[in-house]
Amino acid sequence: MRAARCAVGLDIGGTAVKMGVVRADGAVTATSEIETPVLLQQERAIRQIAWAVAEMISQAGRDRAECGPVGAVGVGCAGLVNSAAGIVHTSPNLPLWKDAPLGAIMAAELGLRCVVVNDANAFTLAEARNGAAAGASPVVGITLGTGVGGAIVVGGRLFGGRHGFAGEVGHMSIDHAGPRCPCGNRGCVELYLGKRALVSAYMRDASWRPGGIVHDLAAGKQEAVDPKMLSIAAARGDRVAAEVFGRAGEMLGFALVNLANLIDPECFVIGGGVSQAGELLLGPARETLRRQAMMGAELSPAVRVAGLGMSAGLVGAALVALDAISTTEAT
Amino acid sequence: MRAARCAVGLDIGGTAVKMGVVRADGAVTATSEIETPVLLQQERAIRQIAWAVAEMISQAGRDRAECGPVGAVGVGCAGLVNSAAGIVHTSPNLPLWKDAPLGAIMAAELGLRCVVVNDANAFTLAEARNGAAAGASPVVGITLGTGVGGAIVVGGRLFGGRHGFAGEVGHMSIDHAGPRCPCGNRGCVELYLGKRALVSAYMRDASWRPGGIVHDLAAGKQEAVDPKMLSIAAARGDRVAAEVFGRAGEMLGFALVNLANLIDPECFVIGGGVSQAGELLLGPARETLRRQAMMGAELSPAVRVAGLGMSAGLVGAALVALDAISTTEAT
Repeated sequence: MRAARCAVGLDIGGTAVKMGVVRADGAVTATSEIETPVLLQQERAIRQIAWAVAEMISQAGRDRAECGPVGAVGVGCAGLVNSAAGIVHTSPNLPLWKDAPLGAIMAAELGLRCVVVNDANAFTLAEARNGAAAGASPVVGITLGTGVGGAIVVGGRLFGGRHGFAGEVGHMSIDHAGPRCPCGNRGCVELYLGKRALVSAYMRDASWRPGGIVHDLAAGKQEAVDPKMLSIAAARGDRVAAEVFGRAGEMLGFALVNLANLIDPECFVIGGGVSQAGELLLGPARETLRRQAMMGAELSPAVRVAGLGMSAGLVGAALVALDAISTTEAT
Repeated sequence: MRAARCAVGLDIGGTAVKMGVVRADGAVTATSEIETPVLLQQERAIRQIAWAVAEMISQAGRDRAECGPVGAVGVGCAGLVNSAAGIVHTSPNLPLWKDAPLGAIMAAELGLRCVVVNDANAFTLAEARNGAAAGASPVVGITLGTGVGGAIVVGGRLFGGRHGFAGEVGHMSIDHAGPRCPCGNRGCVELYLGKRALVSAYMRDASWRPGGIVHDLAAGKQEAVDPKMLSIAAARGDRVAAEVFGRAGEMLGFALVNLANLIDPECFVIGGGVSQAGELLLGPARETLRRQAMMGAELSPAVRVAGLGMSAGLVGAALVALDAISTTEAT
C-alpha cells in the first residue's frame, strides 16, 4: 500500500459547489467554488462540476500545493444517494436530477475513482476524525438545515448499515401519531426541527411589521425568512425567535435521548445553519438529554457544535474517497 | 491462539437459571437448570448458582460431552448490567440484588473467567450467529417480555456503544409527550409493548367472567394474567386478545420503522414470551414497517421470530465468554 495521497472533496449545496484538495490528515491544501448548476440537465451539470475540479487540480499543481498526487474524488450531496453505485437518486438541491450517475460521469471526465456520499455522512466523518468529535466513538452527527440529516461514525468509520442508509436521524419519529412526513413516516424529527417548522413557528407567534428585526433582515418578504435570520434576531433580543429555538432545542433533546439509549455515543456533533443558534438551541437539548437519558446525566454523551465550519462536507467526502482507495490498494 | 473451546452459558430468569455447556459453533452439549434463588442474599445466591455450574461441568466430564475443556463462563441477566466490571446493578428478576459482583464471585468460585452480559445482548448475539438471523448484518434483536429489551449485532459482534448500553429499544420514545416511564423518559416503547401494557389493555376491554378463556387460564385471578394466556386465548378465537396483539404489533412497527431509518439492519429478530403471539403481532408490525420505512417496502429489513427458543440466552452468554477469551489469547 502506498502512502496516503490526496483526494478532492466536493460539497454540492443548494447555491454553491464547494471543492478542495484534502490530505489524509484532513488538511485542505487548495479550494475552489462554483455556483451550483441547478438549471442544467444532469449530465451537463455533472460535467461542468468535473471541469471545475480539473481546473482546481491543475491550479493546485501549478501552486505546488503541499500534497501528493490526487488519488480520488469524493462528492457529498444532500438527498437519497446510493453510495455503492455512485448514483444520486434525488436531491433537494438539484431538483432536475433523477437517478443521476454522478460517480460514473465524474470518474470518466477526470480519470479518477469517484465516491458519492450523503452530505450528512461526509459532515459526520469529518467532524469525528478532525473536528469537534475528534477521537470520540461512537459519534452521531446531526445536520440541522432545510432538512435534518444524520450519520453514525464508529471507530473513525461510517456506519452505513445494510444499504448505507443508516443514521437518518431526521426521520426518526418522536410522535407515532404525529403529522405525516413526505418520507412516509409520522412525527419525524425533521417536522419539528427543519427550516419550515422553525420559520412557521416564528411567523405564527411574531408580529410581522416594519422595524421588526426579522422583518427587516428579510426585507419585508415572508418567504425569505430563514433560520439564520431567526438566530440573528434571537441574539439581538427577539423574544419570539429565542422561544422558537428553545422549543426546538427541547425537541432536539428528545431525539438525542432516543439516540443515546439506542447507540450510546460518546459524542453528538450538531451542524448545519440552524446550529448557529448555539446555546439557545443546545442548552435545552443538553438539559433534556441529561434529564431523560437512561444512562443518567453523568454518563450521557457530550453535545458539541460542529468545529470544521463550512469545510466539513468537502473534507468528509475526500476522507471517504481516501478510505475507498486505501481499502482497494490494501486488498 | 488455541482452538476454540467450550464455555458455560447461563440465563438468569425470573423463575429458573438455565445453564449449558456450549461449543464455539453454538451447539449445546450439556444442560442443567436450578430454581432462581430469589430469596437469598446476593453473595449466597451467586455462590449457589456457581455450585450448580461446577456440578454441571463435572457431570459433562463424566458423560464425555463432546467439547474441549470449559474455558470461561458467560452469564446473561436482565436489568442494568455493567459488563466490563461484571456487576449487576439492578435486575427485575432479582429484587434483592444491588450492585452485585456477579462476575468476580463466579470467577473466584469456579476458577474461570466470567463475563456478565445483558440478557437481550445474549439473545441477539445467539440469534445473529446461530439462530433466525444467522449470517445477517446488522441484526437488531428485540425481546418482548415483562419489559422490552434490545441489542444490535454488527458483523457477528455486539455493538455496545461507549459504555455497553446501546440497543435499549424498549426505552426509545415513540411519543415525546407520552406517559412517563420509570427510566426517566416519556412514551417509551416498553410502555406500549411490555407485559403490563398488554394485560391492562386486555382487562380494560374484555369481559371478565367464568368461562372466558383468559379467566379460566388464570384460574379467575386477574393478577395472574400474562401475555402467554392472551396469546393462547387469541389463538382460540378471543377477539379482544387478538385486538390487543394487533394494536401492539402496530406499535412494534413504529419502533421498527425508527430502527430501520437509524440502523438500516438486514434483519430484526423478535423474541421473548410476547413474541409467541406470532403473526397476530408480527403481521401488523411488518405492514407498518413496509409502509413507513424510508428505504421502502422492498429494501426494508426482514422481521423474524427467534429461532433458538429458550436456549438463545444461555448460548449467547457463552458466545460472549468465548469471544472474550479468544480476544485475550490473540493479544
